[in-house]
Amino acid sequence: MSTIQPIKWDSKNKTLTLLDQTKLPLEETYREYTDPVEVAAAIRDLVVRGAPAIGCAAAFGTALAAIQYTGNDPNELATRVHESRGTLTSSRPTAVNLFWALERMGKLMDSLEAQKIQDCKKVQDALEKEALDIFTQDLASCRAMGDFGADLVPENARILTHCNAGALATAGYGTALGVIRSAHRDGKVSMVWVDETRPVLQGARLTAWEMVQEGIPATLITDNMAGAIMAAGKVDFVVVGSDRIAANGDIANKIGTYSVAVLARRHNIPFIVAAPVSTVDFNIFSGEDIPIEERDPAEVAGYGSERWAPEGINIYNPAFDITPAELVTAIVTEKGVLTPPYPQAIADLSG
Amino acid sequence: MSTIQPIKWDSKNKTLTLLDQTKLPLEETYREYTDPVEVAAAIRDLVVRGAPAIGCAAAFGTALAAIQYTGNDPNELATRVHESRGTLTSSRPTAVNLFWALERMGKLMDSLEAQKIQDCKKVQDALEKEALDIFTQDLASCRAMGDFGADLVPENARILTHCNAGALATAGYGTALGVIRSAHRDGKVSMVWVDETRPVLQGARLTAWEMVQEGIPATLITDNMAGAIMAAGKVDFVVVGSDRIAANGDIANKIGTYSVAVLARRHNIPFIVAAPVSTVDFNIFSGEDIPIEERDPAEVAGYGSERWAPEGINIYNPAFDITPAELVTAIVTEKGVLTPPYPQAIADLSG
Repeated sequence: MSTIQPIKWDSKNKTLTLLDQTKLPLEETYREYTDPVEVAAAIRDLVVRGAPAIGCAAAFGTALAAIQYTGNDPNELATRVHESRGTLTSSRPTAVNLFWALERMGKLMDSLEAQKIQDCKKVQDALEKEALDIFTQDLASCRAMGDFGADLVPENARILTHCNAGALATAGYGTALGVIRSAHRDGKVSMVWVDETRPVLQGARLTAWEMVQEGIPATLITDNMAGAIMAAGKVDFVVVGSDRIAANGDIANKIGTYSVAVLARRHNIPFIVAAPVSTVDFNIFSGEDIPIEERDPAEVAGYGSERWAPEGINIYNPAFDITPAELVTAIVTEKGVLTPPYPQAIADLSG
Repeated sequence: MSTIQPIKWDSKNKTLTLLDQTKLPLEETYREYTDPVEVAAAIRDLVVRGAPAIGCAAAFGTALAAIQYTGNDPNELATRVHESRGTLTSSRPTAVNLFWALERMGKLMDSLEAQKIQDCKKVQDALEKEALDIFTQDLASCRAMGDFGADLVPENARILTHCNAGALATAGYGTALGVIRSAHRDGKVSMVWVDETRPVLQGARLTAWEMVQEGIPATLITDNMAGAIMAAGKVDFVVVGSDRIAANGDIANKIGTYSVAVLARRHNIPFIVAAPVSTVDFNIFSGEDIPIEERDPAEVAGYGSERWAPEGINIYNPAFDITPAELVTAIVTEKGVLTPPYPQAIADLSG
């Protein structure tokens, strides 16, 4: 059981607390939020990251917009809530869980407006409860995914993962790391290979930290070592998260996931994606249509106080890539394990 | 024409000067050497790196062992020279050019001993001349490789390279970057994609710096972005160097090379290796027999003053990997371009 809490909601003080993931693992700093604009900034600046976690944070951000309102005009309150959804929507472009959570909050607001509820406190309470439901459901989803995924893990497995799809990327427990946690609980994990995941180093900083926290045997490598360890026969299973899944099963995930999938295929290693149903974008047919965030070149030019790229060099910094469905062995969701053909398996989910 | 000089020999003062590659690109620091033990330390600590460059540096290191000797006993001088070869041999294990250059210096020493030359000055001069010959021949080899390789480059090529097989990795001009320099001179290069090459960042620090110095259009990416840009159809050609080539055509090169080769194969992109004949180890049948250096875990745990890995995490840090011959489209040497079947093409080289 993971005790890592990246997102905490204080129901008494109506305050959102985020574990600042830009400071991990060297500092365990918690930041408090009562303003949706600051929550949007926290998402943009990666204080909170990981597709399910930013969905949860955005839901609380929307609730905070309602709670911040001290007047008694329900129309004005609704306007504030919808405005905050706009601000939060533009924080990051690729993970669909963000839009899914904001749409769910928006639909509730629409329904409260349609019911012409005049008591602002009731509206505030309803939005807070909805955000808490999103959070609680995400945690339950992660546990379900963990258990479904663990069944796919062979005994004495040496498992490679990329980026951080862990407790830190979710309400807790994790998607890909949820599978690893459940498999570890079942005594099946002999080693976790952790890709460092340049440029932001979510693997080296966050996944490695989670593994150390929980005593799961793990070894950190640079991203470009994954091929060599697969060629040496040292990887039995790959599991990663996803930021958006297209209707055909194409997967958007952290940059470098595609390379891992290609290498896994060459070495006949199962390549598993663990993600809640909220990660599926039923409106997007294939990965080609998923918008890919490009981030600040400074992330590639160095890290922290170190800059190593020379002045005058061009830099390209896409934050995600697309892994085609044909390279994906299975998609683990909280509703069960999807296998090819994905278009049908995914369509069945929406039914 | 490259004006970058990683290795300089001062014939008047009998001093070796190395451009400190651990400080690039932020500082251009030159260090002077008159002692073979310090040259061995410079190789181990990556002040000078790149298979051909460490061969040249080791040759000058051997000459310095002779020059340092101020007595007049030719047997004692020979002992010093052979001792220095032992010290230099153990500086790094993977690149064969090091052993090739030290063997060439050793054979000359053996021949001078056999001739019973009593004048120590003559022995010193002969060893200095041999080291200079190795250096001059490497520069000529790089130019020849550059021209052979440029013929393989398509018009308007977008070329990806990994690590630094540049002027800095050789006596000058470079192997893989020699091909790029010649192709650029011929107007064929529209973009060079530079893999940053974790953990030591030879791409981000050294290749990027060489490209900026020479005004060759180049874009820096993290290693895990290579797959995404290939999938996007933005790479036409891959060229890398090598630290050792087995008799069957398997290639040892900087960690991550294998992943690039697998991705290039998936996308039907030519994967070219540029290396002088001194990189071929005719005594090793396949890549499985090439010793792979493992370096300090601290290289993976952070960079410079930044440490980002949590305490308590295991780290694996192999410096090289093996790319099987079947993934190599061609090997460019100073004697011409080798194509499959490599066992025959390589055997013909030794004839």
